[in-house]
Amino acid sequence: MRARDLAAPFPTVRAETPALEAARLLAGQNLPGLIVVDDHGRPVTILPGTQVLRMAIPSYCQDDPALARVIDEAAADVFLRGVGDRTVAELLPREHRELPVVDPDATVLEVAAVMARSRSPLVAVAKKNEPMLGAITLDAMLDRMLGT
Amino acid sequence: MRARDLAAPFPTVRAETPALEAARLLAGQNLPGLIVVDDHGRPVTILPGTQVLRMAIPSYCQDDPALARVIDEAAADVFLRGVGDRTVAELLPREHRELPVVDPDATVLEVAAVMARSRSPLVAVAKKNEPMLGAITLDAMLDRMLGT
Repeated sequence: MRARDLAAPFPTVRAETPALEAARLLAGQNLPGLIVVDDHGRPVTILPGTQVLRMAIPSYCQDDPALARVIDEAAADVFLRGVGDRTVAELLPREHRELPVVDPDATVLEVAAVMARSRSPLVAVAKKNEPMLGAITLDAMLDRMLGT
Repeated sequence: MRARDLAAPFPTVRAETPALEAARLLAGQNLPGLIVVDDHGRPVTILPGTQVLRMAIPSYCQDDPALARVIDEAAADVFLRGVGDRTVAELLPREHRELPVVDPDATVLEVAAVMARSRSPLVAVAKKNEPMLGAITLDAMLDRMLGT
């Protein structure tokens, strides 16, 4: 069993993907985030799911969540509609989170070690400088290790 | 709509819960982690899912995942069986990750702000020093915000 056998299709976005489309991709799928790929399909970074929430929140509430208490629901709905033409590029954290990438020939134990060390519940599978074959989630790893 | 309305049941463990039971709770549910509660059911911290993988990996592989490549599959299987009577307490990172807790009266926007600021896809709902009512996931927030 190698990384190539565990790799499964995973939703990807590009820097120019609309932010709202990214939010819709995430919703209802219980994903830890989305994988951002370049124009050649090569994995670049991960867009953490919590980052997507930021576009719905005025910056003063991010600094002090208690301020959010004074805003009523109707106004809050407006924020998300105000996303307009923002893109994934604008949602990415300034310091890009490292997306671990493993070779298709990596062993199960190697993938587990990469995941544990990086504390990332998601690992992309790709040969160096080649398009992504798929991704391995923490869930898939636990299933494999527990034999469920 | 307040935090109490969004709070849903969420699997919890205690410090003395066997590590293997925690791994089984996580597997197949696509959870970002498990909430650790004290003897009174009050939320204490989060056990990140990737932390559970650590028990399956010899420490020298965590420092250098390439070393994992030299270990064959059969040997790798032994590691998880070797978990024995380890508990959740032994899996927790040395620096406990902050588990955000919101008051049941918090607004949706306030919950979103707490989630975005803490970068935690999971927020516990509880009154101060009282047992946890439930938890709100990033997924539930996105559903609410996108009206899906």
